[in-house]
Amino acid sequence: MARSVTILGAGLVGSLLAVLLRKRGYEVTVYERRPDMRSNTIAAGKSINLAMSARGWKALDLAGLRKDIEDLAIPMHGRYLHQADGTSASQAYGKNNEAIYSVSRGELNKRLMTLAEQHGAKIYFDQRCVKVDVATNTLHFQSPDGKETVHQADLLFGADGAFSSLRVAYSQMDRTNFTQYYLEHGYKELSIPPDAAGKMQMEKNALHIWPRHNFMMIGLPNTDGTFTCTLFLPFEGETSFANLKTDAAVLAFFNKHFPDAVPLMPTLLEDFSANPTSSLVTIYIQPWHYGNKSALIGDAAHAIVPFYGQGMNAGFEDCTVLCALMDKYGDDWDTILKKYDEKRKPNGDAVAQLALNNFIEMRDKVADPKFLERKKIEKELGKKYPQQFVSVYEMVSFTHTPYDTAMSCIAAQDALLQTIMNEGDFATNVEDAAFNTKLDSWMNEYHRSVQQLDFGNEA
Amino acid sequence: MARSVTILGAGLVGSLLAVLLRKRGYEVTVYERRPDMRSNTIAAGKSINLAMSARGWKALDLAGLRKDIEDLAIPMHGRYLHQADGTSASQAYGKNNEAIYSVSRGELNKRLMTLAEQHGAKIYFDQRCVKVDVATNTLHFQSPDGKETVHQADLLFGADGAFSSLRVAYSQMDRTNFTQYYLEHGYKELSIPPDAAGKMQMEKNALHIWPRHNFMMIGLPNTDGTFTCTLFLPFEGETSFANLKTDAAVLAFFNKHFPDAVPLMPTLLEDFSANPTSSLVTIYIQPWHYGNKSALIGDAAHAIVPFYGQGMNAGFEDCTVLCALMDKYGDDWDTILKKYDEKRKPNGDAVAQLALNNFIEMRDKVADPKFLERKKIEKELGKKYPQQFVSVYEMVSFTHTPYDTAMSCIAAQDALLQTIMNEGDFATNVEDAAFNTKLDSWMNEYHRSVQQLDFGNEA
Repeated sequence: MARSVTILGAGLVGSLLAVLLRKRGYEVTVYERRPDMRSNTIAAGKSINLAMSARGWKALDLAGLRKDIEDLAIPMHGRYLHQADGTSASQAYGKNNEAIYSVSRGELNKRLMTLAEQHGAKIYFDQRCVKVDVATNTLHFQSPDGKETVHQADLLFGADGAFSSLRVAYSQMDRTNFTQYYLEHGYKELSIPPDAAGKMQMEKNALHIWPRHNFMMIGLPNTDGTFTCTLFLPFEGETSFANLKTDAAVLAFFNKHFPDAVPLMPTLLEDFSANPTSSLVTIYIQPWHYGNKSALIGDAAHAIVPFYGQGMNAGFEDCTVLCALMDKYGDDWDTILKKYDEKRKPNGDAVAQLALNNFIEMRDKVADPKFLERKKIEKELGKKYPQQFVSVYEMVSFTHTPYDTAMSCIAAQDALLQTIMNEGDFATNVEDAAFNTKLDSWMNEYHRSVQQLDFGNEA
Repeated sequence: MARSVTILGAGLVGSLLAVLLRKRGYEVTVYERRPDMRSNTIAAGKSINLAMSARGWKALDLAGLRKDIEDLAIPMHGRYLHQADGTSASQAYGKNNEAIYSVSRGELNKRLMTLAEQHGAKIYFDQRCVKVDVATNTLHFQSPDGKETVHQADLLFGADGAFSSLRVAYSQMDRTNFTQYYLEHGYKELSIPPDAAGKMQMEKNALHIWPRHNFMMIGLPNTDGTFTCTLFLPFEGETSFANLKTDAAVLAFFNKHFPDAVPLMPTLLEDFSANPTSSLVTIYIQPWHYGNKSALIGDAAHAIVPFYGQGMNAGFEDCTVLCALMDKYGDDWDTILKKYDEKRKPNGDAVAQLALNNFIEMRDKVADPKFLERKKIEKELGKKYPQQFVSVYEMVSFTHTPYDTAMSCIAAQDALLQTIMNEGDFATNVEDAAFNTKLDSWMNEYHRSVQQLDFGNEA
């Protein structure tokens, strides 16, 4: 007999998981802390846009949802860099015009919720989980009127995000390792509306970045013609949110650092004062599961910073892996949850580190011509040596190679590219037969050094 | 007007802090979760003996308590190693017969509590702090009968140990960095009683170690003629607590690994099954304080593993530093708590790392003749070059040099000793003039590499 499943959180991962479990015949009940966002306005200015990439699409395919979501998604084929000196530059993400996709978190979430309900999941809103007894799977909920209810879960998933109540309960168990790490940077959402004629004011199919070394702004396109911009800046210090307390200070800061953006942002000052300054947390926990009773999934297990655009993709891949394990082990949840933890924990750790690393890449390295040159060479290598070389960025965004493997390739790729760039201009060198002989041997050496890693698709 | 102070926890640090604050005229109220251990038996088998060293004594001096405690303390001048091959070896801790002191945690705590009360502190027992509102300093307590009381603190210290309720509240604040890390090893307390004639069964003035690479047992002397033994062993795996589930398995394990101890432990099997297997946690948190309202102190701020014998010493040094800051800044608690956090947090991190490193030293390295040779050379260097060289162990245990500085000396001392030992037998070499010339220059180089560090006494 199939078990009934309780899911904490009707966010992206919780709703998708509900669909996937219903498709397998499980009875599914979801408890969501917030009111139903389909009939309420969600709190503004606190949700960075999503960048859906291969891992996200794969899980949507599993749920039969790709078509539903495609019309919400705007392909971004590369970075559009707004440099400090007023110049701009473009940098394609892939070698074959691959894209990551800008998607509205709210719209995606609403469609997933509706789909979960259409598949027969029951979602209870306004239910804050105030306590979980892990050993007995007893859940205590509080509604906005203060009423408490108790629910006995059979099989439980905590898909309740970075501040998961199931994770809090896990972290209080003996021998649970736990880390929460906040960046010194916060973020604030801002907006670029369409022009008077309703036209987008910047290149639509790109992720816009204003890299300024220790801080940056990014902009992602929306289907309504707006761009959602996000400023990432230290909370404290000379150039910081703490020093942007007046309209005059905000305006001076933007005029100095983002002069090309200011004319596109008519509501800059209103947005800046109305929208919160939010923090950026990374979460590590071990274990991710408890016997055959419960497991963490998505941000609840591995909240990460948003700089690789992998938060939702990683959570969706958790679902993909869980489905593959259900396919393999049927109703043997002892084994499924144990294997899920073993397989996903190293990848959760890896994507967290990748995301932290990529903040430095986005805000700092992309402003360096050498870095842009390296990215070009990587693409040439990928074309010239398709059997030997896939760049880490491409692995993460366009394949299903485990994050852990991508992490393990970084040092070898850094060394390889350094060797190549030490020889001088690549475009010139590559015309030369002697250089190509050396290049062949470097590529073989690189390939040998990483070929024992698991490049197999997740799940 | 002096503020009134609330202390969570009447353990070693809380009780000492109460004495020190009363001596400065503060009104002090202490809330303790447990019943009064002076009129109740404390739970057996869950408190590793203390090893009081220089930092601990210094704080006791400040409180005027050295004399009260000295008669409880047994000097241990070195390690007594019970090797796996049946041989034994001794290794002095210091070059001048310095000692660390075995003290009963319970007796020390009782005396400190009584002294705190004699100085006018009020201690409430059986008060479990179930909630702290950090912003308002409102504390909620629950007594064993379920009765809840609310207390409004003026200035608050969380001295409530590794699972501090104030620290839990801090960890839930935005932008608090927090890590709890458990070892894969657990521990169990055992005992060696005096012989039939009432005599101690092993060398009294030593810390006994049975190093067995991945696990170990230690034994510390007590004033009643017993030794408190502690077995440190992985929870899981081939050689682990998980595989010691029967009397036969326990006895076979002890006969194999600790054959010299078994005849001294008549209650081994009873102790093994009656005493709990406990876990070993390391805690990191940032910040350690909140405005001028509250601060963490002792294990609440920096719970560490017991392998350097520095847990209590580090907590007492927190008190010493706090007193020095009160001397300097009077009632300016904004400044006192800010400086306390700045000064102590790096040292809390350092002592945590030192303690983790020392587990490997105690259970593994001390079994290696090369390591014992190194320790001998270190002492010779300390005598021959007193201005240039103090070993890290001596810095930590016999000086008030900041832990952070001791940590920073490790790599340089490792390199120095490696260089010296690469030359062959030190006792022979040191008779040779040419070697001494080289040695002089190595010592000068070492000294130059560390001399910019802060060796000044804490506080």
